[in-house]
Amino acid sequence: MKISKEKMILLLGKEKNYVVKPILFSCEYGTFDLRKLVGKNFGIKIKIGKEEFTVVKPNIIDLLRKAKRGPQVILPKDSALITSITGCSPDWKVVDAGTGSGFLALFLANIGCKVYSYEKSKEFYEIAKKNMKNFNLDINIKNYDIIKGIREKNVDLITLDMKNPEKVVKHAFKALKGGGWVVIYSMHIEEVKKVYNELKKYDFVDIKILENIQREWQTIKQFTRPKTYMLAHTGFLTFARKF
Amino acid sequence: MKISKEKMILLLGKEKNYVVKPILFSCEYGTFDLRKLVGKNFGIKIKIGKEEFTVVKPNIIDLLRKAKRGPQVILPKDSALITSITGCSPDWKVVDAGTGSGFLALFLANIGCKVYSYEKSKEFYEIAKKNMKNFNLDINIKNYDIIKGIREKNVDLITLDMKNPEKVVKHAFKALKGGGWVVIYSMHIEEVKKVYNELKKYDFVDIKILENIQREWQTIKQFTRPKTYMLAHTGFLTFARKF
Amino acid sequence: MKISKEKMILLLGKEKNYVVKPILFSCEYGTFDLRKLVGKNFGIKIKIGKEEFTVVKPNIIDLLRKAKRGPQVILPKDSALITSITGCSPDWKVVDAGTGSGFLALFLANIGCKVYSYEKSKEFYEIAKKNMKNFNLDINIKNYDIIKGIREKNVDLITLDMKNPEKVVKHAFKALKGGGWVVIYSMHIEEVKKVYNELKKYDFVDIKILENIQREWQTIKQFTRPKTYMLAHTGFLTFARKF
Amino acid sequence: MKISKEKMILLLGKEKNYVVKPILFSCEYGTFDLRKLVGKNFGIKIKIGKEEFTVVKPNIIDLLRKAKRGPQVILPKDSALITSITGCSPDWKVVDAGTGSGFLALFLANIGCKVYSYEKSKEFYEIAKKNMKNFNLDINIKNYDIIKGIREKNVDLITLDMKNPEKVVKHAFKALKGGGWVVIYSMHIEEVKKVYNELKKYDFVDIKILENIQREWQTIKQFTRPKTYMLAHTGFLTFARKF
Repeated sequence: MKISKEKMILLLGKEKNYVVKPILFSCEYGTFDLRKLVGKNFGIKIKIGKEEFTVVKPNIIDLLRKAKRGPQVILPKDSALITSITGCSPDWKVVDAGTGSGFLALFLANIGCKVYSYEKSKEFYEIAKKNMKNFNLDINIKNYDIIKGIREKNVDLITLDMKNPEKVVKHAFKALKGGGWVVIYSMHIEEVKKVYNELKKYDFVDIKILENIQREWQTIKQFTRPKTYMLAHTGFLTFARKF
Repeated sequence: MKISKEKMILLLGKEKNYVVKPILFSCEYGTFDLRKLVGKNFGIKIKIGKEEFTVVKPNIIDLLRKAKRGPQVILPKDSALITSITGCSPDWKVVDAGTGSGFLALFLANIGCKVYSYEKSKEFYEIAKKNMKNFNLDINIKNYDIIKGIREKNVDLITLDMKNPEKVVKHAFKALKGGGWVVIYSMHIEEVKKVYNELKKYDFVDIKILENIQREWQTIKQFTRPKTYMLAHTGFLTFARKF
Repeated sequence: MKISKEKMILLLGKEKNYVVKPILFSCEYGTFDLRKLVGKNFGIKIKIGKEEFTVVKPNIIDLLRKAKRGPQVILPKDSALITSITGCSPDWKVVDAGTGSGFLALFLANIGCKVYSYEKSKEFYEIAKKNMKNFNLDINIKNYDIIKGIREKNVDLITLDMKNPEKVVKHAFKALKGGGWVVIYSMHIEEVKKVYNELKKYDFVDIKILENIQREWQTIKQFTRPKTYMLAHTGFLTFARKF
Repeated sequence: MKISKEKMILLLGKEKNYVVKPILFSCEYGTFDLRKLVGKNFGIKIKIGKEEFTVVKPNIIDLLRKAKRGPQVILPKDSALITSITGCSPDWKVVDAGTGSGFLALFLANIGCKVYSYEKSKEFYEIAKKNMKNFNLDINIKNYDIIKGIREKNVDLITLDMKNPEKVVKHAFKALKGGGWVVIYSMHIEEVKKVYNELKKYDFVDIKILENIQREWQTIKQFTRPKTYMLAHTGFLTFARKF
């Protein structure tokens, strides 16, 4: 696969990585005219100053690290939890709200889902649009408040990361196909409860509340232990499946 | 989408679920001739005895629950962790070994990866083949010991869940493209260390060791707390990226 | 120290332990007349059938394992958390309610605290009394509802494991000395919040909410990993210190 | 209880705490001549500038926060875990090595144990001595390498936080009474294994490896969730009981 002048490249280094377009590029190691790389194959190595880099086609995780962050984002670890419970796959029709910085929409679009994303804030909508342009992923993003209704029908998966998701539950129930999932991301227990109580009013089954904790380990000079500090909390995910 | 006589269906109930082919079906609630459903649309409701079910096209997680388990399996939570670190997507070429019951290969194929899976045991190879047939996912499975070598080139992701994965590291390094990932699943710290030390001999970057913990919560009569017991350990995942 | 006929002994075995009085004793290994041991020194070894046991003076943890359990108990791991935050020591005056099975009162009395324990239920009060008799620990237990008031003054530590602990906060504030601690054990988040909000109305400082998680590891044939299952939740502990 | 000129006092504030002797004291809020407090009762309130403080007799946790830290310390959460498994109580004879900054020795002495602490480094021995003087706790600390032998007999508990604790196992087995515990604190899995394998050579029972994780919660404006970051690792504790 060849490097194009429109698309992002990853400079994979031993200490640092950079995600950039093929421009005249400067970093702490020196300067390199990345425009020379256009038309060449990914995988070649370059030197910036004394530091060597492999030029790689960036994947979704590389790109997300570079993405603009407006509101709080859903981390890949939590996006992945959604795939592990719902089993979403490339042919799925997904409704997502609020878009926020678009991290979850991008993650799901990246595994081939057809994503319709609702964002009521004009400002976040613009940030998400910019992020999506850099990803070459086809997401249908709308500057619209999902509390007013969901236009899509026969939806496989609805993901909600927004204030008052409980106000969307009735729309979600209607828009989902039988066996389809709604997933709500909440930072606080009180939000979990509010949406949980609303879900119980409809014909949902398999309701469950999960949190996902990643613990990192290190091996230094043959001594192995968990890293000293860890992220203790991102959010709770509430899952429910339409009967 | 219509129900076909060849493919599995999910009977989604309020208490229990069943994944079956459309046959004359009996369960604790009674008997139902599912053959009558062939040609109808998914989403219809049926009654078996007094119990109502929605007939749903099963997703990968539904199918995995039904899959035959020979050797120990990689759970969806750990498969999903792999997607969240490597960013794998539908166009990826993936090499997987040992296949085992095929859970990881199926999970990755389900999000569109082109998976080549190696299993040296004839017995496990047959179990995995049967599982794959029920999934309609195109996986290239071979009854071959990956320690002897990897035939694929320019690979995006290599996943190893097998004894002595450290013996595959040199093959993996050669088969991967620049920026490609190798991921090793290990139950024990000693195995993590052995493969970690081997990885350090090659030009890999971003080496990290993670474990993934899922904690489930419950809300009963307006009282919220974590469930009393949890799965404390499945395995450690070691990630490394080819420079 | 000598074995007496009044006090419990621990038979420490390689597979099983027993906490009993020196009686004619039968277990799966056989029968032994423990009365012969009275007057001998702790530490001697006996054989019951083919199984060897060391006769040991039981400690608080041994005794708690044997104690009668009426209502839910506070486990030693959570009792210990209380000592690690409050720094309680042998000279402390402690008020405890509700006594329940008496586990926390016994744990604190065992490290020398002078404990006054309130239990409004006659039934639990009797269970706790029996437990305490077997421990030779001097605890002042009363069959009285602490919601009606605390009689002690100048208290170092007040521990509450009961319904509606928020109704005791005002009494606790009055009974505590400056710098003294109140600690509330709650199973559910909703209870934590209720008492937390009440604590905020008084001059308490250093308010914090903690949970304590113990993860056990195993080494089998030189392979090391966490045990597969763990206790995921016992309770939340809310701490506050009187200004 | 009265304030004396020799002993530490805790100034408990709403934002900050100070542990000091009754001297002419300055802090960010202003200056106060604490010598005026000598002979008065604990519990009185003073103002330093505009900030109010309660004058409190400091407990072990307050004092440890102020203690000098030379080598890495055992935190109260791990010290408390030791009490919750071994059930140690005021009458216990405890051998501790290496003393380090003395945190564990002080914690155990504070609940009334008679502690004999071994520290081979002259430098750490001096730090620990200073800490102990400020605590008014009677600890027998020796500048001696425990690998050369343990002088005490009939010991209830031996705690090891040192390099090569496996070299002390044979001494520990001899010094312990039947039913007594040895506990080893290790940062790394490799150290756990080495000492575990040594323990297996002797007649120890109830061998177990634990780690203790504290998760803190917060309630802000009626919204409750775990704090974002947490301490992910301090050490592993290996327990074994002499048969």
